[in-house]
Order: sequence, then structure tokens, then C-alpha cells
Amino acid sequence: MNKIYVELGDRRYPIYIGSGLLSEANLLLQHIDSHQVAIVTNETIAPLYLEQVIAKLNGKRVETIILPDGEQFKTLEITTRIFDQLLTGKFSRNSTLIALGGGVIGDVGGFAAACYQRGISFIQIPTTLLAQVDSSVGGKTGVNHPLGKNMIGAFYQPRCVLADTDVLKTLDDKQISAGIAEVIKYGLIRDKEFFVWLENNIEALLARDESALSFAIERSCINKAEIVAEDEKESGIRAILNLGHTFGHAIESGSGYGAYLHGEAVAIGTCQAADLSRRTGRIKGHDVDRIIALFNRAKLPVVPPHDLDASSFLELMAVDKKNIDGAIRLILLDSIGQATLPTIVEQHFLTQTLNEYGRD
Amino acid sequence: MNKIYVELGDRRYPIYIGSGLLSEANLLLQHIDSHQVAIVTNETIAPLYLEQVIAKLNGKRVETIILPDGEQFKTLEITTRIFDQLLTGKFSRNSTLIALGGGVIGDVGGFAAACYQRGISFIQIPTTLLAQVDSSVGGKTGVNHPLGKNMIGAFYQPRCVLADTDVLKTLDDKQISAGIAEVIKYGLIRDKEFFVWLENNIEALLARDESALSFAIERSCINKAEIVAEDEKESGIRAILNLGHTFGHAIESGSGYGAYLHGEAVAIGTCQAADLSRRTGRIKGHDVDRIIALFNRAKLPVVPPHDLDASSFLELMAVDKKNIDGAIRLILLDSIGQATLPTIVEQHFLTQTLNEYGRD
Repeated sequence: MNKIYVELGDRRYPIYIGSGLLSEANLLLQHIDSHQVAIVTNETIAPLYLEQVIAKLNGKRVETIILPDGEQFKTLEITTRIFDQLLTGKFSRNSTLIALGGGVIGDVGGFAAACYQRGISFIQIPTTLLAQVDSSVGGKTGVNHPLGKNMIGAFYQPRCVLADTDVLKTLDDKQISAGIAEVIKYGLIRDKEFFVWLENNIEALLARDESALSFAIERSCINKAEIVAEDEKESGIRAILNLGHTFGHAIESGSGYGAYLHGEAVAIGTCQAADLSRRTGRIKGHDVDRIIALFNRAKLPVVPPHDLDASSFLELMAVDKKNIDGAIRLILLDSIGQATLPTIVEQHFLTQTLNEYGRD
Repeated sequence: MNKIYVELGDRRYPIYIGSGLLSEANLLLQHIDSHQVAIVTNETIAPLYLEQVIAKLNGKRVETIILPDGEQFKTLEITTRIFDQLLTGKFSRNSTLIALGGGVIGDVGGFAAACYQRGISFIQIPTTLLAQVDSSVGGKTGVNHPLGKNMIGAFYQPRCVLADTDVLKTLDDKQISAGIAEVIKYGLIRDKEFFVWLENNIEALLARDESALSFAIERSCINKAEIVAEDEKESGIRAILNLGHTFGHAIESGSGYGAYLHGEAVAIGTCQAADLSRRTGRIKGHDVDRIIALFNRAKLPVVPPHDLDASSFLELMAVDKKNIDGAIRLILLDSIGQATLPTIVEQHFLTQTLNEYGRD
């Protein structure tokens, strides 16, 4: 088992990574100081792992809240269902909420924990690769709004993150690929050595080679933990984690939440960001080819949906948390392994990328 | 003009108290570093002060969000309306939300500011006595749930609080009295000298004597600011601010939000807490009489509604943020000027208070 700390002073917390963690006695219990525990999960995950988690909560009063599965349910209405059930169950401020599931469950569950009685204890048990390498770490919680992704939320840190690599065995291939999209991101934004490792080991990851997966998750979490410790509330460097996400969010909300997995949309968006980085003179065409090739090998989509034209993109991208006073600000690449801070690019370059990249 | 600071490190902020503050140039502007400003207010306040505030926001892009007036609108649905309007208006994370109104507007507006894009800048302009002395200070924001008051929310501090005492002139007498309930609370929980001052000056306050009001607001804010600086997230001493509130919240939610003003319910609840403090041997009957007499002179109700019996009270009080694992925990008085931390009392004493106090 590996243990990585997110260094946030008195809110410091560990990320546990390894095989068989869900079966380990006391790993979970040592982070729970309340009698009341609510597990928020979804219809897909519940039959697979819920019993296993409950079995480790000996002596606690446990209630489960089972939500429908999918990005289209990451809404304020679903959060309200969690509030209703917590209140009906008389959960006090001295309770713990465990989010058992992928990114959607972690985001909604974490947001509910942040707001219920102004904040209760919260634990993340991510069950997808994407959640293990990215969304469960760093305290971003929230829900989507019809007008924009993750528009309503809170920064709210968990007490611990428990990433059992065994759960990845039950994922379908699409979800492994979606997770790899965020893994590649870490290489691109700040860890060139990792990017090269990924070029050499992408097939091992797709084949779910245990040591390759463990290494990739750990290296991703180390990168994420360092960034979050430096800039928890995203007033600066943390924004680089959004590489490809402004394009990606536009794809997700423009196609209807759920049409693309988040990681798939990010893969396309990162290729668009790479293309724009080239057009604005930051990286070479050769680098763009290398990036697209890696996403391709990871069996991820690399071109935007045909029905989403440049003007739709621009409208959707206008609603982004990085924007200031209406100007679209993007994370670009200065090189493989080096991202820019949010940058306003000349409109005609952005329009070129939107009209030309992947449009032939 | 008086200026009191809430000492919260890098989130330190001033409370300005005085006459004519809304007309002072730059007082507001110096706390706004964004171009986009949203003013959240209600239908009662808008015709009175909205233009005055907008006039001080020269050069900003200002949009107003006008909500219906009343505690019954302090809901998640109303918060959603704020989100909708902010998103439709393309407000970025670099925006400022001004809450112009009483406690409800401050609580809902603050909660919206806390959650919109995971947090935007926030300013409180309280327009009721209750909001000026209590709810606008300290960062408690949130909304009610049919099953309990303030059950959904966040700790989220404003950039400044601007308490213009001139606005108190337009309040009706009921609202002045409601504010005085929280003022009396500060005397009871930690400031005996202030309690005695209130006994000597209660009629001046009711008559809206300017110097009496200014003194009372300032002294209340000093007390509140000290407590909040010591214990922002209510892990300890801050809970004493809840004197009378567990009973009070039960009255508010049991009677339907809006039937009682918050301060009125707190007045009744504080008398019940005083009665229970006597029954459990903490204070003398003479002290209880003194407390009830002061609330009476402040023209506040002191007995609970007849249709709310002990079992309804107990059920409603079971949903309270101070409770742990189902046990009702109350703030009581050890003396006038000295409150207890949350305390579990023997059930029969609580039942006696609920059945006997004010029931003849």
C-alpha cells in the first residue's frame, strides 16, 4: 500500500493506494470519529462494493443513499435528495459521509457533505480510474447546471481518500481509457518524464497490468497533491489542472451530459488545446502529433463532435470558471511537460482551432 | 463611523457601523475588486435602498436579483434562482455578490456566493437591526429545509459588513424588537455589564435613539466578532450564540416559517432556556424574572405558541445542528452574563419546561 499526503496544514489528509484496501480492517474506521455514517453510492456500484464497505463499519449506524448512475444526475436536485435522506434519518453535524463511486458520486457526495449542516466529515472511496487519479483528490466538489459544468459547488477536503486498485477490474474498457486521459494530463502539464513513461507503457495500462496501474495512479496523485497543497482554492497554479477542460466541458454540456465520459471529452479538449498551442507558436506540430498519438493509442476520441460548430463552442466556453469579465482564458502548453497559466488568445487562432482541428 | 474587525487572519474583515454609510463614496468600492457586481435584495428593500447602493458602484457592471420577502423564501429553490440569474448574466468567478437586506437575504445571498463557481466575493449590507447585530457577522450562511432551519449552508465570510444605522428608521416596531432579542442575547451569554445597560436603556432603543442604537449595535458586533475570531466553525465556544435558538428554531419551523420573526422566536426560546436553567439548578428564579421582564419591556413574546405541545417541540428539537447522535444539546445560563457550552439535560427537566413554562 502506498500513502500520499495532501499537505493542507490541519486539514492534511492521506490518499491510500493499493490492492485489497477495501478489505483491510480499520483503514476506514480510523478516519471516522462519528457514530452516524451515510454512504452515498449509485445503482451500478452498490451491488459490487457496498456490502464490503459496510462490513468494515462495525459498530456504526450506517445508512446508504443510492443514486442513479451517470453525469446527467450530477445536479442540485439529486443533492437535495441526499439532504432529504440525511434529515429524515436524523443525521447530526457529527456524522460522516462516505462517497463510494466514480467522479459524479464524489462530486455530488462531497458537495452534500460540504453543505449539510454547514459541513460534516467526508471520505472518498473512488471506484473509477478517473476518480482515483483526479476527481477524488483536492476537494473540488459540486454539481452541473444546465448552463455550465461544475458551476455550483464548494472546495471541501475529505478526511482521506481510499483508492483500492482491485475495483478497476470491474470497469469497462471505456472507463479505463477515460481515466487515462487525466493521467496523460499530468504528464503534459508538469511531468515530462511521466509522459514518456506513458508512451512506453500505455498498452500495459490498457491491459490493466497491476504494477503499471499502481505506478500511474501514484504518480498522478503525487502531482495532484503537490499542486493542491500549493494552491488549494485555485488562485493561481491549480488552474493548469484544467488543461483541455474548457473545450471538454463545452463538449460535455453541448452534447448533453452523459453522451461523453468526462475523460473522453477531456481527451478531445486536450488535443484542441495542443492544436491551439501550436497555432499560437508555443509548441511544434511534432509535439501535437505525439500528444494525439498517445490519446489515440489510449483508445480515446481525439476529434470534436461534428454537430458542435465553432459558434456553439464559443458560446459554451464563455461560461467557464477561469474566465474573467467575459474573456475566455485557456490553459495551453509551452512544451510537453509545461503548461501555461490561464491565457487569453487572439480570437482568430481560437476560431481556427475550432473550425479546422479535426474537421476534415 | 465605527469600525470593528473580525480577526480571521488573511480573511480578516471590517464591520462599518454608523449613520449615512450608504451615501459615503468609496466605502463600498474599496472592497470590490471585480467588474461584475450582483446585488441580491428583496421586494421590500429594493424600492428603499437599491438605487442608493447602485449609485455607489460607478463603473461596474451591476445586475440586481430581487427575491420575494420573508423567511419562507429562505430555500434551496430561491438559491437556485440566484444561480440561474448569475449564469444567464454570465457572471464569472471574479464577481462580487452584495446582499442588501435582512437576515434572510444575507443568509441566502451568502450561501449563493459561497457555492457559485465554488465561491465568489461577498459583501453584506444588513438592513434590519437583527442582521446588523447578528446574522451579517461571522460567515454563517444557508437556507432552511422543511425538516429544519438552516440545515443546508456554508461558513463563508464576507469581505466587509456595512451597517448603516439610518436604514433602521424605515423598520416597523416589530422588527426593532426582533433585533433587540439578539442584542439581549449578547448580554446574557457573556456581557453582564451590557445586560444591565440594556435594562437601563431599553426604552431608548425602542424609541430608536440614535446613540443608544449605535452603542448597542457596536457592543453586539464586538461580542460577536470576538467569538467568531476564536471559533469560526463552531467547534466550541461559538455555540453559545445559540442561546434560545434550539427552542426558537422549533417554534419557527413548527409554526411554519414566517409566522414568527426569527428574533421573536429567539426571545421565547431564551425565556424557555432561562426557565430550564433554573430547573436544573443553574440560575435563580429571580434571574429568570429579570430576563423575562427585559424581553417583555422590549415588546417581545415570551411564551411559546399554545398549539405546539411538548412532544412536537421534542421532535422538532431533535433536528438541531448541536445535537450529537440524537441527544438534544442546549445552551443554558450559569448566570446572567455566563452561558454554558452545549449541555445534555435530564429529559424530565426539559419536559417540565416544555409542559409548564408559559402554559398556564
